[in-house]
Amino acid sequence: MASDEQHFTSEGHQWTPQAGFLSGIPSIGVIKPASKGPSNKVHDVLVIGAGYAGLTALRDLTVAGHDVMLVEARDRIGGRTWSSNIDGYAFEMGGTWVHWNQPFVWRELARYGMSKDLEVSPVTGKGLDRARFVKPDGSSVDLSREEEFNTLDTAVRKFVNVDGQYGRLLIPFPHNPHFNAEDVARYDAMSFADRFAQIEHDVTPLQLQLLKTFLSVTSGGTMENSAFFEFLRWWALNNYDLRGLSELCLTYKLRDGQSALARQLFDDAVATGHLTYRFGAPVASVTDPAGDGPVEVRTRAGETFRARRVVATVPLNVLNDISWSPPLLAGKRKAAAQGHVNHCTKVHAEVANPDLRSFTGYHWEGPLSWTFGDGITPAGNTHLVCFGPSYPGIQLKPASDAGRGALAAVKAFAPSEMADVRRLVFHDWNEDEFAKGTWEFLAPGMATNYLDDLRRRQGRVLFASADWAMGWRGFIDGAIEDGANAAMELALEFRAAKEGQQPDRNAGKRVLHNFLMAGWPS
Amino acid sequence: MASDEQHFTSEGHQWTPQAGFLSGIPSIGVIKPASKGPSNKVHDVLVIGAGYAGLTALRDLTVAGHDVMLVEARDRIGGRTWSSNIDGYAFEMGGTWVHWNQPFVWRELARYGMSKDLEVSPVTGKGLDRARFVKPDGSSVDLSREEEFNTLDTAVRKFVNVDGQYGRLLIPFPHNPHFNAEDVARYDAMSFADRFAQIEHDVTPLQLQLLKTFLSVTSGGTMENSAFFEFLRWWALNNYDLRGLSELCLTYKLRDGQSALARQLFDDAVATGHLTYRFGAPVASVTDPAGDGPVEVRTRAGETFRARRVVATVPLNVLNDISWSPPLLAGKRKAAAQGHVNHCTKVHAEVANPDLRSFTGYHWEGPLSWTFGDGITPAGNTHLVCFGPSYPGIQLKPASDAGRGALAAVKAFAPSEMADVRRLVFHDWNEDEFAKGTWEFLAPGMATNYLDDLRRRQGRVLFASADWAMGWRGFIDGAIEDGANAAMELALEFRAAKEGQQPDRNAGKRVLHNFLMAGWPS
Repeated sequence: MASDEQHFTSEGHQWTPQAGFLSGIPSIGVIKPASKGPSNKVHDVLVIGAGYAGLTALRDLTVAGHDVMLVEARDRIGGRTWSSNIDGYAFEMGGTWVHWNQPFVWRELARYGMSKDLEVSPVTGKGLDRARFVKPDGSSVDLSREEEFNTLDTAVRKFVNVDGQYGRLLIPFPHNPHFNAEDVARYDAMSFADRFAQIEHDVTPLQLQLLKTFLSVTSGGTMENSAFFEFLRWWALNNYDLRGLSELCLTYKLRDGQSALARQLFDDAVATGHLTYRFGAPVASVTDPAGDGPVEVRTRAGETFRARRVVATVPLNVLNDISWSPPLLAGKRKAAAQGHVNHCTKVHAEVANPDLRSFTGYHWEGPLSWTFGDGITPAGNTHLVCFGPSYPGIQLKPASDAGRGALAAVKAFAPSEMADVRRLVFHDWNEDEFAKGTWEFLAPGMATNYLDDLRRRQGRVLFASADWAMGWRGFIDGAIEDGANAAMELALEFRAAKEGQQPDRNAGKRVLHNFLMAGWPS
Repeated sequence: MASDEQHFTSEGHQWTPQAGFLSGIPSIGVIKPASKGPSNKVHDVLVIGAGYAGLTALRDLTVAGHDVMLVEARDRIGGRTWSSNIDGYAFEMGGTWVHWNQPFVWRELARYGMSKDLEVSPVTGKGLDRARFVKPDGSSVDLSREEEFNTLDTAVRKFVNVDGQYGRLLIPFPHNPHFNAEDVARYDAMSFADRFAQIEHDVTPLQLQLLKTFLSVTSGGTMENSAFFEFLRWWALNNYDLRGLSELCLTYKLRDGQSALARQLFDDAVATGHLTYRFGAPVASVTDPAGDGPVEVRTRAGETFRARRVVATVPLNVLNDISWSPPLLAGKRKAAAQGHVNHCTKVHAEVANPDLRSFTGYHWEGPLSWTFGDGITPAGNTHLVCFGPSYPGIQLKPASDAGRGALAAVKAFAPSEMADVRRLVFHDWNEDEFAKGTWEFLAPGMATNYLDDLRRRQGRVLFASADWAMGWRGFIDGAIEDGANAAMELALEFRAAKEGQQPDRNAGKRVLHNFLMAGWPS
C-alpha cells in the first residue's frame, strides 16, 4: 500500500568528506505532487500538520467516511519524526524507538503488518564493547557495561526514589500521571537541579556526572529548566526501571525507518478517497467565527480553506506563530510563549570502524554529550547516533560553521577510534521554524499550570499533539494517542449531529458509576 | 453511547444462603432484542462470535463502512469475558485484568474514554494482610507478603532461567515469540513437570509447592499437560519479571466490568448503521462453495446467512463442533481435537469479613487452589476471587451437587475467617458448550505443530481468536489483536477489489527491504 519511492525534502543536512555539506536529503515521507483534490468546499475536518497526531486523526476520520483536508507546512509527512534512506540505510532524523509496551504506536505497527520489522539499536559484544566517559578535563575513563549500568542505575534510583517505592506510589497510573495531583504538583515545581540538591550527598561524583549526562539528553534542557516531575513520569511509563527505560525508549527501531510507518497511515487515508491535502502550506491564521459558519484556515500564501471542525496538531513551541481567532486560551498562550525546554540536538555519524558497534560514549560538557553504536551501514561502517543538550550548545546550521562544530563534537567522544568519519546526517530541530525544539520536555510548573488549557478544545477547533498527550507525552506513542482521541471526539460529534442528539461519549459508563456509588454505604 | 441496562442471561450461577442456587445472572452484555436487520442479503462479512475478537472485527469493519452480520450462539456479547453487576458490584465471570502494557486492549479503553476507569484488585495493609498456605495435610502456615513474594520469585526465576538471562535471549520479542524457532521448539516440547525435573534439586519444598500452585492457575491444566514454553511466553510478555506478571495480569480491572467495554465496541458498530445481528443462534455449518458464490453459514435452527467473507472467532476447543466445508486444515482439526488444556475454574465469593481484603490463600491439592481479596462490595463484605485447576477438579454445575463443592472449596482456604459466605458467583466454563474450557493454554508441542495452521485463512473464511493470537495469546489483548488483524486484511481486500487490484499489504515495505538487502555487503 505504501510507496517506497524517495524524493528529496528541503529539510535535513548531510556531510561527507567528498561533497561537504548538503542541505536536503531523501525520504519516502515527501509527498509529490504536493496537493490533491478540490479545496474550495467546506470539509468535515481540516487537520493542520501531518505528524503522527495529524496522520492518525486524518486516517481515523477518513476511514470512518468523513471528508478531511490536510494542510501541512512542510513538503513531507511525519513532523518531528521522519527517516531518510541513504545508501541503503535508514537514518532517523527525529523520533526513533518504539516498543510493544507503547500501546498506540504498537497497534499501528500491527495494523500495517510491521510489528515484526524491528531492529535492535544497541548490541553488546561487538568490538569495543564498553562505555567511555570523557571527563570535563578531557581525560577519559572506560567502564565495563556492568559498571556503566550499575553506576547509572544507582544514581537514577536515588534520583527517583521520592516515596520509598521508586515513584510507584507517586505515579501509580503512568497514563494518568496527575492521579495524585497535590504530590505531583510539589515535584513538578522542582527542577533537576533542585532534586540534585536533595541527593548529591549520597552519590559519587562519577554517578552524579553520568546521571546528569543521561538526564541532559532525556530533557534536552538544562538541569535548572527541566522539571523533575517530567522525568518521574518517564520513569513510571518505563515500568519504574532503568533497564525498562533503556528497552522502551532506546532499543527497538523500525528496519525501514519511521517514514515507512507514517506513509502507511497517510496512504491508508488517501486510499479511502476522502482525503484532500496541501503540502508546503504554512498556516497563518485560524478563524472560528461566531455563528454557524465554517472555520477558516488561511495559509501564509493567502489561500483559505474551510471546514466544520479543525484539528490543530501544531507543536507547543510554535503555537503562537499562528494567529488564532478567537485567541488561544491564556494557558495555551503562556505555555507556548515559555516553550518546552527540549533543544536537544541529534547527529548521525557513519564512522569507518566496525569495532564501534557496541561502543557508548559520554561527554559531559561536550557539545554532544552521548553516543552509542546504532547499526552497521551497507558500506560496513558503524552508524553512531549522538545526542547533545542545548547547552553549552552546538550550532548545527551549515551556513554558520559549515558543520565543523558537529564534526569536532562527534570525534571528541573517542578521537582515535572515530578519526575516519564518512558521513554526518541530521535535522536541526532548533533552527526549524515549524518545531523550534525537539521532543516535548516541560519546565518546572508547566504541567501543573498549563496542561489542562493545552488539552482544551476551543469551539470548533481541537488541539492534538504528543506535546500534551496523557500517556507517552513527548513520544511517538503520545502523538498517536492524542490524534486518535481528537478523531474519536469528532466522529461521535458528527454521529450525534446526524441523529439530532448531543454527543455523550461516556453516557452509559457514567450512569453505571452513579449507580455503583449510590449503592455504597455512607 | 453504551447502554447501562442489565438483562438476565441464561449463563452464570449465583448462590446465596437465602435463595440457594440460581442459574442466570444479569449483565449489560445481554442484547435485547436478540436480532436486528435483514439477514437475507449477501453481507460483506459475517462474523461468527461476539467475544472481543469478533467485536473488534465487526467494529472495525462497520466503522469503515462495510456491511457486517454477526451470528452469536449466546444471548450476550463478550464470549469468555463478561461481567455481572449484582447489588452494585461488578463480578467478572471470565477475563478480567488489563494493563497499559497490553497495547490492543489499552487502545480500546482510550478510544472509549475508559482508560482512567481502573480499580486495583489486590491491595495490601487491610486487615489480615498475609498469605496463608494450606499444606496437603490440611495444616497451614502464614507468610508475610515479603516472604510470599520472595519464595515464589526465587522459584519462578529458577523455573524460567533457561538461558542465563531469564528468558530474554530465548524470547527477545514477546510479540514474536517464535523468533528463535528451534530453541523455542525444544522448550515447547517440555511440560511443566519436565522442567521441574531439571530444577527441583535446587528449590525448597515450599518454593516448589508455591510454584506449582501458581502455575496451576496460569495454565489451568496439570503439570504434565501444560507446555513449559507457554509459561516462558507469558513471562516474556510480562517484562520477564514476577512483579511485572502480577501487575500486568492480576492487578487492574475495570470499575464497571468488562461488559462495559465490550458494550462500547458493540454499540459503536450498531451506531454506524452497518451491523445486522442474530443472538442465540449457534452455527452448525460453514460452507465456502467452489466458484464465486457467497459463503453460507447455517445455524442449528436451520437459518442460512450469506456473506462474501466470514470471520470465525470460534474458540479452539469447540472448533470441531461446527461442520466446515471444505474441511478444516489438518492442523486446525488436530489442535481442536486435542484441545488446549485450560479447565481452570473461577469462583467469586462475597464473605462477611472486611479483614480479608488483603488476604491471599494458597491451597495446593485443594479443589480451589488460589484466592485473593479483590474488592469490598457495597454491603461491606470482602469480594474474594478464587481459582482452581482442572485437577483434582471441582464440579461447579449446581444440578450435580447444588454448589456444595464450591462452597466447601472456598471455605477451605481459611475456615474460621471465611465462615460467613454471603454469595458465590461463577460461570462454569468447562460445562459451557461454546467454550469447553477457559483461557487458552496449550499442551507440549501444540504451539510448534499447530499454530501456523490455526492462523491460516481458508479461502473466504478467516479465523480470529485470542487462542492463536501473536502477542497476548489467551488474553483479552490477544483477542482484540487478532480480530483487528482479520478486519484489516478484509478491508484491504475489499479496497483492492474495488480498484481491480490484488491486495498487497506490505508492498512498499517489502520492496524497500529488498533494496536494503541488495545493498548489504556479501
